Amino acid sequence: MKELVGSPGTKSGLILRLAQCAFATASIALMVSAAGFSNFTAFCYLIASMGLQVLWSFGLACLDVYALRIKRDLQSPVLVSLFVVGDWVTATLSLAAACSSAGIVVLYSHDLGFCKKHYYPCAKYELSVTFAFITWFLIALSSHLMFWLLASV
Amino acid sequence: MKELVGSPGTKSGLILRLAQCAFATASIALMVSAAGFSNFTAFCYLIASMGLQVLWSFGLACLDVYALRIKRDLQSPVLVSLFVVGDWVTATLSLAAACSSAGIVVLYSHDLGFCKKHYYPCAKYELSVTFAFITWFLIALSSHLMFWLLASV
Repeated sequence: MKELVGSPGTKSGLILRLAQCAFATASIALMVSAAGFSNFTAFCYLIASMGLQVLWSFGLACLDVYALRIKRDLQSPVLVSLFVVGDWVTATLSLAAACSSAGIVVLYSHDLGFCKKHYYPCAKYELSVTFAFITWFLIALSSHLMFWLLASV
Repeated sequence: MKELVGSPGTKSGLILRLAQCAFATASIALMVSAAGFSNFTAFCYLIASMGLQVLWSFGLACLDVYALRIKRDLQSPVLVSLFVVGDWVTATLSLAAACSSAGIVVLYSHDLGFCKKHYYPCAKYELSVTFAFITWFLIALSSHLMFWLLASV
């Protein structure tokens, strides 16, 4: 298999996984600290989805550290297939969560103008959704890299 | 390049493109016929995104018909690269539109209970979003097929 930037078991791969973890954690922290988030199913789903993302990315970051330490090659077809499926599932769930939350944020701030009237912490909701989109972008990057790696066997 | 089910210039590919067109058109028709959709940015975005999907899938369906008629091979790396990018962009936009609309449908029907109180045509909104999700599933299938084709050159 080719050696690509961000592929598993490399330093760039580790940095990518840690960035995914960081942005997903920031998204969860902001959403949990915003009052009234539990009234919205989409916001609860965002937290669940970002939680899954943190678990997945952290697990793969640990695996990268392990591979870098003992200098083991992680690019076997079986392992890469597993990464492809996991990355694709978490990327789709992250995008779905970010978009459904964004739909509600736009509805409240733009369509209904509730953010000014009802004192919702819209700025926190918006920032949390933005971080969720950045997380999705990073995981989509990983996902495409893995798929490319797998297909170019 | 390998001959895969659903690849461009084959009968299965044509059927896949026509199915994408049909579901996207059904989603637009249902949303446009539902009263009050224009008050929601997400629903307008759903219509725009499904419209783009119809244009893209219909264009490729025409190309498939042309290729089947004159028995031309459409699987050159340049063409497949173009299909990959187009499919990936429209798939992402479709999922984003379906999810943001689904977020609002869940908010109104489940979280706020507005569907019973305010006589919104929620059943139509729901069906339209369901069709949008089916469209996304079909275009995601195409997108992965194309990416696989491109990577296995």
